[in-house]
Amino acid sequence: MSITVVGTMAFDAIETPFDKTDKIIGGSATYVAYAASNFVHPIQQISIVGYDFPPEELQNLEQRGVKTDGVVIVNDKKSFFWSGRYHLDMNTRDTLITDLNVLADFDPQVPESYQDCDFLMLGNLVPAIQQKVIEQFKKRPKLIVMDTMNFWIETAPEDLKKVFTMVDVLLVNDSEARQISGEYSLVKAAKKILKMGPKFLIVKKGEHGALLFNEDNVFFAPALPLDEVFDPTGAGDTFAGGFIGHLAKTQDVSFGNMKTAIIVGSAMASFCVEKFGPQRLKEISHADIEERIREFVQLVSFDISLV
Amino acid sequence: MSITVVGTMAFDAIETPFDKTDKIIGGSATYVAYAASNFVHPIQQISIVGYDFPPEELQNLEQRGVKTDGVVIVNDKKSFFWSGRYHLDMNTRDTLITDLNVLADFDPQVPESYQDCDFLMLGNLVPAIQQKVIEQFKKRPKLIVMDTMNFWIETAPEDLKKVFTMVDVLLVNDSEARQISGEYSLVKAAKKILKMGPKFLIVKKGEHGALLFNEDNVFFAPALPLDEVFDPTGAGDTFAGGFIGHLAKTQDVSFGNMKTAIIVGSAMASFCVEKFGPQRLKEISHADIEERIREFVQLVSFDISLV
Repeated sequence: MSITVVGTMAFDAIETPFDKTDKIIGGSATYVAYAASNFVHPIQQISIVGYDFPPEELQNLEQRGVKTDGVVIVNDKKSFFWSGRYHLDMNTRDTLITDLNVLADFDPQVPESYQDCDFLMLGNLVPAIQQKVIEQFKKRPKLIVMDTMNFWIETAPEDLKKVFTMVDVLLVNDSEARQISGEYSLVKAAKKILKMGPKFLIVKKGEHGALLFNEDNVFFAPALPLDEVFDPTGAGDTFAGGFIGHLAKTQDVSFGNMKTAIIVGSAMASFCVEKFGPQRLKEISHADIEERIREFVQLVSFDISLV
Repeated sequence: MSITVVGTMAFDAIETPFDKTDKIIGGSATYVAYAASNFVHPIQQISIVGYDFPPEELQNLEQRGVKTDGVVIVNDKKSFFWSGRYHLDMNTRDTLITDLNVLADFDPQVPESYQDCDFLMLGNLVPAIQQKVIEQFKKRPKLIVMDTMNFWIETAPEDLKKVFTMVDVLLVNDSEARQISGEYSLVKAAKKILKMGPKFLIVKKGEHGALLFNEDNVFFAPALPLDEVFDPTGAGDTFAGGFIGHLAKTQDVSFGNMKTAIIVGSAMASFCVEKFGPQRLKEISHADIEERIREFVQLVSFDISLV
């Protein structure tokens, strides 16, 4: 069962209150692929990189069952580069540098070999590009999940609303949900957003967990309380990768299974933040993932028969 | 099975971004008593009020099984009065007025009739007074739960640390846990605080739920996502009342039952915020409480067999 992933593969330089990196591998599609490849093969990657992107990084992904036919390598430009600095709470950050480089020309083409795709993950990109990707599929994927960000909510609201009508699941954080809906209450925000198109809304709250809304149902998944959040970069994309990976593996897009998928996504994200970049995602085994999911069960289980 | 509650009974005037009140009934012991009296009788109240406190409020509590032998009425002073204004997020607030009035003389005496007490709830008070209350019991209560606040952490840290060594459960919010421990990570903060005396630590995170720590165990309870938080005043005390009420009712102070008690406390707090002051707590029935607890079960239940 295949998942097609569209997003960035890039370099990041990260400063936290505790440490900093030089340029390391990043990008939304990188994190999604590392997370999702634990659950299904192939992951069909669509992205764009420059001449400076290490070939061994692509090989590494291929060895994990990630197809890179859809990754364009531009020989005379550099890869997308982002640099940022996190505040003490690790939930907020300042962007220091954004060098679009190859991303300015990103016009993703869905390879013929990717047409057989049941699950589509649209990373945070220009809404018009997200729409164009969806329209290239001759058969609509069974489930389309999209991410977005405040920049597009502010600069391309009409394009964004058009994409909302074409997807099944929208993934945003709490401030984005408030911005899209104009409602402070997340419950009211969700009601408005679900009328805009998506059947499911996931509101990510960082260290405070995530909420899933569908019709009148709501589910809450906590984030695992960690001794230390070392680097939150990519945690949202890793969450998305675990979420869609579990759905694709189980072939079940019911609300009940989406709840489990959110726990899987939260577990994957809890690994991501333990080291800089996708490093920790490269190290973990299936046994590690299963153990982490058991910790989530422990974290929220209580005996209602005692009431 | 009895619960002794020590804390304020007072007047509040509240401004939220959406509405405001004149003087209404408030105080930590008021909220604890309204919540806990749904679960056990008697609630043994220890507090102090002025000549202006409405007798019908005390009668109302008595009708709910709250003993008021320990509530001193001062005939020539006014009741404690607090006024505050909430910010848009409803998690932060500015104090506008604090008139201590009778509270300046509060020297709580445990009535002889309260000596048979298994559960003791120490509301937020001067730490030395909390200590003095504990020391008045000839037989140590089975479980002592205490609340505190940033003011005492800053102004009476040594007295506070002394009380920590005398209690079983400490209830604080996330910023207080960080302040007490000097650790930003709540996991690290909990490890330090549990070494200071309390066997159990509950970290309240407002709309983001609550964490329970005990030895190496951690449990997370969400707050119910609400359409609207109308007035958060008293939510923490109501949580405490539901928590200790459930424990006293079930006579079980194991970690497993404390998890359930936190869900019960969260359910009670979710009612409290629906109207100004303790109004909503006066209205709800046992059926309402059971229904609300079922909503919490729905909110966090997922099927791990699907992983």
